Amino acid sequence: MAKKIRIGLLGGGRIGKLHGANLQNAVPDAEVVVLADPFLNDAMEDWAKSVGIPKCTKNADEVFADPDVDAVFICSSTNTHAEFIMKAAAAGKDIFCEKPIHTDIAKIKEALAAVEKAGVKLQVGFVRRFDKSHKAVHDVVASGKLGKPYVIKVTSRDPEGPPMSYVEVSGGIFKDMMIHDFDMVRYLSGSDVTEVNAVGTVLTNPDYAKYNDVDTAIVTLKFANGAIGVIDNCRTAPYGYDQRVEVHCEKGCAQDNNNLIDEAFVSTADGVVSAKPTWFFLERYNDAFIAEEKDFIDAVINDKEVPVNGDDGLQPVRIAIAAGKSLAEGRPVKLSEIEG
Amino acid sequence: MAKKIRIGLLGGGRIGKLHGANLQNAVPDAEVVVLADPFLNDAMEDWAKSVGIPKCTKNADEVFADPDVDAVFICSSTNTHAEFIMKAAAAGKDIFCEKPIHTDIAKIKEALAAVEKAGVKLQVGFVRRFDKSHKAVHDVVASGKLGKPYVIKVTSRDPEGPPMSYVEVSGGIFKDMMIHDFDMVRYLSGSDVTEVNAVGTVLTNPDYAKYNDVDTAIVTLKFANGAIGVIDNCRTAPYGYDQRVEVHCEKGCAQDNNNLIDEAFVSTADGVVSAKPTWFFLERYNDAFIAEEKDFIDAVINDKEVPVNGDDGLQPVRIAIAAGKSLAEGRPVKLSEIEG
Amino acid sequence: MAKKIRIGLLGGGRIGKLHGANLQNAVPDAEVVVLADPFLNDAMEDWAKSVGIPKCTKNADEVFADPDVDAVFICSSTNTHAEFIMKAAAAGKDIFCEKPIHTDIAKIKEALAAVEKAGVKLQVGFVRRFDKSHKAVHDVVASGKLGKPYVIKVTSRDPEGPPMSYVEVSGGIFKDMMIHDFDMVRYLSGSDVTEVNAVGTVLTNPDYAKYNDVDTAIVTLKFANGAIGVIDNCRTAPYGYDQRVEVHCEKGCAQDNNNLIDEAFVSTADGVVSAKPTWFFLERYNDAFIAEEKDFIDAVINDKEVPVNGDDGLQPVRIAIAAGKSLAEGRPVKLSEIEG
Amino acid sequence: MAKKIRIGLLGGGRIGKLHGANLQNAVPDAEVVVLADPFLNDAMEDWAKSVGIPKCTKNADEVFADPDVDAVFICSSTNTHAEFIMKAAAAGKDIFCEKPIHTDIAKIKEALAAVEKAGVKLQVGFVRRFDKSHKAVHDVVASGKLGKPYVIKVTSRDPEGPPMSYVEVSGGIFKDMMIHDFDMVRYLSGSDVTEVNAVGTVLTNPDYAKYNDVDTAIVTLKFANGAIGVIDNCRTAPYGYDQRVEVHCEKGCAQDNNNLIDEAFVSTADGVVSAKPTWFFLERYNDAFIAEEKDFIDAVINDKEVPVNGDDGLQPVRIAIAAGKSLAEGRPVKLSEIEG
Repeated sequence: MAKKIRIGLLGGGRIGKLHGANLQNAVPDAEVVVLADPFLNDAMEDWAKSVGIPKCTKNADEVFADPDVDAVFICSSTNTHAEFIMKAAAAGKDIFCEKPIHTDIAKIKEALAAVEKAGVKLQVGFVRRFDKSHKAVHDVVASGKLGKPYVIKVTSRDPEGPPMSYVEVSGGIFKDMMIHDFDMVRYLSGSDVTEVNAVGTVLTNPDYAKYNDVDTAIVTLKFANGAIGVIDNCRTAPYGYDQRVEVHCEKGCAQDNNNLIDEAFVSTADGVVSAKPTWFFLERYNDAFIAEEKDFIDAVINDKEVPVNGDDGLQPVRIAIAAGKSLAEGRPVKLSEIEG
Repeated sequence: MAKKIRIGLLGGGRIGKLHGANLQNAVPDAEVVVLADPFLNDAMEDWAKSVGIPKCTKNADEVFADPDVDAVFICSSTNTHAEFIMKAAAAGKDIFCEKPIHTDIAKIKEALAAVEKAGVKLQVGFVRRFDKSHKAVHDVVASGKLGKPYVIKVTSRDPEGPPMSYVEVSGGIFKDMMIHDFDMVRYLSGSDVTEVNAVGTVLTNPDYAKYNDVDTAIVTLKFANGAIGVIDNCRTAPYGYDQRVEVHCEKGCAQDNNNLIDEAFVSTADGVVSAKPTWFFLERYNDAFIAEEKDFIDAVINDKEVPVNGDDGLQPVRIAIAAGKSLAEGRPVKLSEIEG
Repeated sequence: MAKKIRIGLLGGGRIGKLHGANLQNAVPDAEVVVLADPFLNDAMEDWAKSVGIPKCTKNADEVFADPDVDAVFICSSTNTHAEFIMKAAAAGKDIFCEKPIHTDIAKIKEALAAVEKAGVKLQVGFVRRFDKSHKAVHDVVASGKLGKPYVIKVTSRDPEGPPMSYVEVSGGIFKDMMIHDFDMVRYLSGSDVTEVNAVGTVLTNPDYAKYNDVDTAIVTLKFANGAIGVIDNCRTAPYGYDQRVEVHCEKGCAQDNNNLIDEAFVSTADGVVSAKPTWFFLERYNDAFIAEEKDFIDAVINDKEVPVNGDDGLQPVRIAIAAGKSLAEGRPVKLSEIEG
Repeated sequence: MAKKIRIGLLGGGRIGKLHGANLQNAVPDAEVVVLADPFLNDAMEDWAKSVGIPKCTKNADEVFADPDVDAVFICSSTNTHAEFIMKAAAAGKDIFCEKPIHTDIAKIKEALAAVEKAGVKLQVGFVRRFDKSHKAVHDVVASGKLGKPYVIKVTSRDPEGPPMSYVEVSGGIFKDMMIHDFDMVRYLSGSDVTEVNAVGTVLTNPDYAKYNDVDTAIVTLKFANGAIGVIDNCRTAPYGYDQRVEVHCEKGCAQDNNNLIDEAFVSTADGVVSAKPTWFFLERYNDAFIAEEKDFIDAVINDKEVPVNGDDGLQPVRIAIAAGKSLAEGRPVKLSEIEG
C-alpha cells in the first residue's frame, strides 16, 4: 500500500466537512491528519472523530508548521484564502483552495506569485468541471469532432435564494453565483473571455435591491477564439437546481440535461410526470467533488499539472468584475479594462 | 354545409403554394377561388389545377375587384405586402398577410391605418405561435399558474444558411431570421420589449461580412413587465432545425424540446442514438400553418379577433431595427429610440 | 401530369372516410371516382361531395363493373371483405383491403386464391408498419447492423375499451386488437411465429367475461428464426394510446417511445410534467395511413410488390386463433396445429 | 454520539468488500469490527486495514461467539448461507444475508425456523428494491393513486454473460439471474405469484446448452391479486445493464428508464447520441446497496421490521423452481405444485 498524501484541512464548516469526509471515505490515496478551525467546538471535534481525523486545532499556523502535512485544503472563509495560500506556499505544501481565491485582483495576483515562487501546486475549487455531464460536453468539444465552437450557453439557477446576510457580503450575483459559470464558459470554449454585456434585475425578492444586487441576470460574452456566448442566472427555481450547458459548433451541438432525482415516470390522464432535478449542489455535484479531490491528489502524487490552476482562479473574478461594471454602466465592458 | 370563405391567393411561390394547398385540402371552411401571380406560367397553372383552384391571373387587381372573393392571402414578394394590404382593405376584403408587412416602419403604419379605416381583418403570418409545443408553453405561462415570468429564452437555428442572393436583399439576420423570435418573445412574455442589446459575428461563412450581415447572434431583451430575456440565432445547424423556447417563472419553468423525425432509438456499445430534429420549417411547422389558416378563417366566419394582429406585425420590425442599431453601435438600444 | 389511379371506395364509415379523404387530399397520384355503401344517405353523400368524390351508389357491384375504376379500397364491414376481394379480382382490379380479410382461415385462402388466379395486387391494411418510429426500428433490425434478433417485444394499449356491442361480434382480443401486434412481430422479426402461449384476464370491466373475452392479455411467442418474443395488451390506458416496440439483438437494442401530443414540459415543485401520448390511432397513425396509401398506389402504378401481401393478411389470423386456443386450453399451442 | 451497531462481516469476496466498505464509509451508525473468511490472505487483510476493520479471522465461529458483535452480514458462498443464518440466530445476532438463502426449499425453511425461534432479525439482500427509480415506481403503485395493478413488467439484461464455470453451478438463469426479477414483481405488485409459464432458448453462446441452461428467457406470471405480468431476461446487452420496470394500472402506468452514465447528448448530421446505461450492477445499484444497509441498521437500532424478510427470501426461490419446471415440461406451472 503506497503512502497516502497527508492533508491539513483548514476550515470545518459545510464545505470543509464535505471535503474532509470525502477525503477520508472516498479518496483512497489521501488521509486528513489535522483539522484547523478558529471556531473549533465540541460538535466539530465529534465530527472529526467520526470521520477519523486524529487531531484538531484552532490555530491554522500549526498546520503550516506541521512536517507531517503534505498538502492543505483551504475551506475557510473567503477573506482568509489568499493569506493561507501564501503561508502554505511558504511552507512548501501543495494547495487545494476553494473558490474564490479573493475578490480583489491584486490580492489574487500576490497569492499566485507566492505559489509560483514556491513551486508548489495550487488547484482552485471550480467543482463543476468535474461533473460527468458537463465534462462529457467539454470533452467532445475539445476533441475537435464538432469543429469550431460558435455559441457557448450556460443556464444556472439555484433552487432558493441565499439569506440576505450572505447577500450583504457576497459581492453580488456575478461574484457569488455566476462566477461558476464564468469558469464553465472558459472550460467549455477553451478560450478566454474578451468582452461582457450584462442585464440584470430584481424579481424574486425586493430585498436584493437594498444591497445593490440583482437576483436574475443575463450576460452575453465574446471569446478570444471568435465564439460568442450567454449565461443566464436566477436565484430561485422551485423545481430544483437547474444546471445546463450547451456548445453549438460547426458540425453539431453538445449539451446536457439536468440530473433527475430518479428515472421513474408516471403516465395518467393528467400528463406524464417525471422526477425533478436534484435539489442543490450537494446532490448534483457530489460525485464531482470526489473526482475533483482525486484529481488533485493524483496531481500531487504523480507530479501532474492540476486541472484548474491559479489563472483559472483569477480569470472568473476579472469577468465577474467586468460584468458588474457592465450592469452598473449599461454598456459592454472589455476585459482589457479590468486589471489582471 | 355552410358557405365557405372564398379566398384570393396572391402569389404562387413556395409559401403561396403551401397556403393554397392547405386551404384546399385541410381547411374545410375555405376554398381558393383564384390565384394571382405576375409570373404565372404553365407549371403554376398545373399546380393550381391539381389542387382545384379554378381560376388564375397575372393581375392581382382582378382579385381585389372580384366580388366573389371574401378574403385574400398575401404571399407575394415582401415589397408588395403593404400595397396589397391597402388595396384589399379598400376593397373591403379580409386579409391574411405573410410576414413582414414591410421593412419600413412608415409603410407598415400606412398599411395598418388603411386596415383600421376599412374595418377589415388583418392577420400577420407569424406561424410559430401556432406550433403545438410553443403554444403549450405560452398557454401555461398565460394561465398564471407559474406566477410572474422572469426569463424568456428562445433558441433558433436554421439547418443551413440561405443563398447569398437572399442575404443581399433580406435586411440582415434580425429582419430575416430573428424577427420570428422577436414575435415569439412577445407572445411568450405577454409583454412588449423595451430595450435590446445585440452581439453578433460571422462564423459559418465569411461571405456574410460582404453584405454587412452576421450569421450568429445573441440578443438580450428587457420587457415592459420587468422580465428579461435572450434569443440566440445561428444560420447553420447540421443536425436540423433547432427551435426551442423556455420561460422561467416564479413558480416553475415551461419549455419545449424539438420535434424529432421519429421516436425510435438504438442502444449499442457506441451509445444511444435517436432521431434528429425535423429538417426545416416545412416539416416542423406544417401543422402550425394549418392551425394558423384555420384560426384566420374562423375569425372571418365568426367575426372574432385575429390571433396575430397588425401591431403584432409592426413590433417585431421595430425590435429588429433596434437590434441592428445595437449591433452597429455596440450599445443597448431602447425601443423608444425607434419610430413606431 | 401523369394519369391518376382511379379508386372505387367500398364503405363510407369511419375507416372508409379516412382513406377517402386521404386519397383525395394527400395522395397526388390517386383519385376516388366512386363511393359504394349499402347504407348511403344524405350525410354520406355530403361528405363525398366535400372531398370531391363525384359519384355515389348503394351497390358495390356497380364499382366492380365500372371500367373507369382501376383499383378498390375495401373498407366495408369485415364479413364482406373476402367476397369483395373475389369480385374485385374477377374484375381485374387491384385491391387494398382493410384487415382482417376474414376471421375464417378457409375463407381467407379462397380469397387469396382468387387474387392469385387473377394476377391482381392485394395489399392488406396493417397500417402500423408504416408508422415512422416502428419502421425505423424495423429498418435497423432488417439492415443486419444489430446482428441476430433475440427478443421481440410489443406493448399495445388502447385508451379506452370498445362498446360491448363490438366485443360481442369482434372475435375477442386476439382477433380484434392483438392481431395488429401479431403482424408487427412478424414485421419486426422478419420471421414467422411457430408457437404461442397466452395468459389473459378480465380486469377493466367484468362485462368482457359475458362474451367469453378478456381485456388484458400477454402472449409469448417463438419464431422460426430462433428468436422469442412477448406482446402485452390492455383495453384501457387512461393516459392515451400506448404503442411501443422493442427488438433486442446480438449487438444492441432498437426500440421506440410513444408520440406525444407536444414536446412541451413544465418543471415545478411538484415534478416535471410533459404531454401525454397522442390519444388514439387516428392521431398516432394518421401519417402512417397516408404512407400506406401512397405505397399501394406506387405499387399499382409501377407494378411493384405490395408491402403487406395476402400471406401477411393470413398469418396474423392464424396466430390469433392459436392464441385463443392457448388461453382456452391453458397450454402452449404450435402454429402447426392451426389450419393454414 | 449513539453507540454504533457492531458488525461481523462473513466473507471478504466482491460482495463482502462492497458491504464492508459501505458500512465503514457510508453508514454512520454501523462499524465492522471483524472480518471472517476461510480464504483470508494478505491482500484481504490489507483491504480490511484500508477500510478500518480492526480484526480478521479464518474462522466464522469466532464471530458468532464474539459478544462484541451485534449483527452479521453473510456474504460468503451460497452453500454456507443457511448454516450461518442458523448459527447467528443461535448466538442471538441480527442477520443480513445475501441472496439466495439456499437453492433448496427445505434448507431455507429450516433456516427461517431458526430465525423465528431465536427472535432475531433477518434481512435478505434483494438490493434492487432500494434503487430510487424502482422504489419510486413501487411507491406510487403502493400508494393506491393509480388504482388496481393490471400488468407488471420487468426487463433485465446483463451487459455480458457470466463465465461458464459459474453457469455450471449457478442453478440456471431462473435461480441466478431472474430471481431478482421474481422478487421485483412481488415487490411491485404487492402480491404473490400463483402461476408461471416460461419460454427460453440459447442464442448468445451455445455453451449454455451444455449445462442445460438458457441465456434468453421470458416468463409470464399470474398474481394472487388478479394482475398478470411478464419478465424478460437476456444474458448479454452490449449497451450496458438494462433494468426497467413497469406497472400498468387502472388509472395510469408507472415505469422507469435506465440510469445513464451521464446526461450529455450530441446532435450532429448523424443523429442525436446520448450516453449508455451504466455498465453493471455496481454502478447501477451502488446507492441502493447503501440504502439497503442503512435500512437494516435502522431496523436493528430502532427495532423495526426489516424491509425484505425471510419469506421474501423464500418465495423467489419457489418461483424460480416453478419457472425451471415450466421450461422443462413446456406447460404452465402453479406455485402450489412447488414445496413451500
